Amino acid sequence: MMVKGFKFSAVEAAIKKPGRLDLALIFSETPATLAAVFTTNKVKAAPVVLGMERAKEGVCQAVVVNSGNANACTGSRGMEDARETSRLVAEGLGIPDEAVQVSSTGVIGVQLPMDRVRGGVPKLVEGLESGTLDDVARAIMTTDTFPKLEARQGDAGGVSYTIAGVAKGAGMIMPNMATMLAFLVTDAAVEPAWLRKAFRQAVDASFNVITVDGDTSTNDTALLLANGAAGNVPIHEGTPEAARFMQELQDVVLALARQIVRDGEGATKFVAITVKGASSAGDARQAAMAVANSSLVKTAFFGQDANWGRILAAVGYSGVAVDPDRVALFFDDVLMASNGVFAGGDAEARGSAVLHKDEFTVTVDLGLGEGSATVYTSDLSLDYVKINADYRT
Amino acid sequence: MMVKGFKFSAVEAAIKKPGRLDLALIFSETPATLAAVFTTNKVKAAPVVLGMERAKEGVCQAVVVNSGNANACTGSRGMEDARETSRLVAEGLGIPDEAVQVSSTGVIGVQLPMDRVRGGVPKLVEGLESGTLDDVARAIMTTDTFPKLEARQGDAGGVSYTIAGVAKGAGMIMPNMATMLAFLVTDAAVEPAWLRKAFRQAVDASFNVITVDGDTSTNDTALLLANGAAGNVPIHEGTPEAARFMQELQDVVLALARQIVRDGEGATKFVAITVKGASSAGDARQAAMAVANSSLVKTAFFGQDANWGRILAAVGYSGVAVDPDRVALFFDDVLMASNGVFAGGDAEARGSAVLHKDEFTVTVDLGLGEGSATVYTSDLSLDYVKINADYRT
Repeated sequence: MMVKGFKFSAVEAAIKKPGRLDLALIFSETPATLAAVFTTNKVKAAPVVLGMERAKEGVCQAVVVNSGNANACTGSRGMEDARETSRLVAEGLGIPDEAVQVSSTGVIGVQLPMDRVRGGVPKLVEGLESGTLDDVARAIMTTDTFPKLEARQGDAGGVSYTIAGVAKGAGMIMPNMATMLAFLVTDAAVEPAWLRKAFRQAVDASFNVITVDGDTSTNDTALLLANGAAGNVPIHEGTPEAARFMQELQDVVLALARQIVRDGEGATKFVAITVKGASSAGDARQAAMAVANSSLVKTAFFGQDANWGRILAAVGYSGVAVDPDRVALFFDDVLMASNGVFAGGDAEARGSAVLHKDEFTVTVDLGLGEGSATVYTSDLSLDYVKINADYRT
Repeated sequence: MMVKGFKFSAVEAAIKKPGRLDLALIFSETPATLAAVFTTNKVKAAPVVLGMERAKEGVCQAVVVNSGNANACTGSRGMEDARETSRLVAEGLGIPDEAVQVSSTGVIGVQLPMDRVRGGVPKLVEGLESGTLDDVARAIMTTDTFPKLEARQGDAGGVSYTIAGVAKGAGMIMPNMATMLAFLVTDAAVEPAWLRKAFRQAVDASFNVITVDGDTSTNDTALLLANGAAGNVPIHEGTPEAARFMQELQDVVLALARQIVRDGEGATKFVAITVKGASSAGDARQAAMAVANSSLVKTAFFGQDANWGRILAAVGYSGVAVDPDRVALFFDDVLMASNGVFAGGDAEARGSAVLHKDEFTVTVDLGLGEGSATVYTSDLSLDYVKINADYRT
């Protein structure tokens, strides 16, 4: 994955169990424009607090990420550790401290093993000569079972550019930045204010409409660095170039978001939940989220049980306007219920066949208005419980 | 369990799998004052719609309950079936149709097998001569593993009375009446308006502060019938007799609520979550509920893992005012974190010992104000997933 002017590196610093990459670096040879979105959780990890402060400047040249330890609920020492990590990287690269973003993911409430970070950073800087974005994708994994990587090519005024990104997710995935890290880089030149607006919009339509277990984490961070090394005329809002860039960006983040759901802890299903006919788009999203987060619905998906009644029940308690007598429900294109009642005929057999697929859609039509929204989720499996019961041991 | 003027009955009507009681009747020899609380789910089962209508009258003489089928999402035929069930019972007992409350619990979206209800009702009426409240407790079970029954004696002006109740719960338990049925009877004479107020207050401090999986059902119902057969002077608000009655009533409903959590689907732990030091009582309850409903927290309980960071994370995304630097967290009386940071020392070992108990408390002190609330929950176990993946099969 070549993105002009960017270098990548990852090393094994022994923060995680032996044999796994756990410290990664993204470096832009020139200062890049930064767009950033952080967790809405009020309990924020130290690197998030530091990162939010620095993101105000809107410039970034390096991102250092560790997995295996979230540096969350670690108090003032945690803040010092995040700052020291940043300082070590800045010194190694010969760039200002403020141009470094620090990110962490892993167990909460345990102090970062700084001796290992100190040992790892010099190797990380050396590794920039030979590292790849794929290494970064591997180094940020926690309970993820596969690295998540996506890229698209674009063109602005005859100059081609690349948007590439990596992400990690698995458990604790929920809108508003659940433990999800995503780092995107592009060599396109983009007008800073619009880059930020476009990134927030893209995140809202991707990472913020996926949910694995409804838990929002302390560490979520999505960063996009644009360094302009492609040499295009900077992309401005309202131009065809901006529309093209937005499309490529959305493709990358949505692909990463889908990979995260696919790799939800213990997930055996990928389910798109669409609510339409709602009184408003907000209602549609709220109802879809209630369905996507219902433990009873998600265990039924795991059991491949066409239990549409649980879905109606979840819509009913979601808090949005519902008239049960108007509701229709589909599994893929199979009508399971209309006017709030079982559709009859061979719906049970056909619906059950849909639920035996790895990927399917659930559509609930409330029959009230024009509001529509789609969210993506996984099932709740035995492995989800196993993974999370034993996570720290 | 003797409660003057009440008779009970339960039969096997083959609505559930063979060999299990599934149709029950509670009968008061004279019209009783009714207090009732129903689900807040907008998708309400047919018997709930009917029951809410009739509860306005404030009088009830019989409650008929079936398990194995919720009669929810069953449209106009479901309403007809609920009405016919009521009519059959009223005719069998020689009482007005409007004095019958109907309740159902079980699978959603399947029409009630009325032929079996028709066959069962006459046997149910005959059975009143020999039935007990314990039979009713058994007949309303679905995935429950034990019947839930509780009673207390009280005294009003030298006349003793009894408050007795049964409940069913297990999965789908969440405040605002999740699939939970509770039927209470008392032979005390109680002033109707105050009875309703007292019952709502008791339900709010018991059934509405328990949560197993966060799903609110279509069928929840709690009924209290007071027939005055004890012969006491009617109990009025603001008297010592009212205070005594309230205490006995709260004891009964809280005991039933605790039994429901104990028997949460697959539950291996009973956990009381207290949030104190919140800005308001509402904040405290909201934060405690977020902790109690977090899949990550509940799987850690199942894994007996003293993962206090997940609890702080849940408080952080609960939406209430939180200053992480002020938060303290306890497992029973073991301080795990103070000022938002791990307490150190032997806290890990001592906290882990607490989590190995069957029953323990989690206390989060937000250090902001005087708001306090306690909710009760269970863990999220492998058996929860197994039970709910295969529920209909």
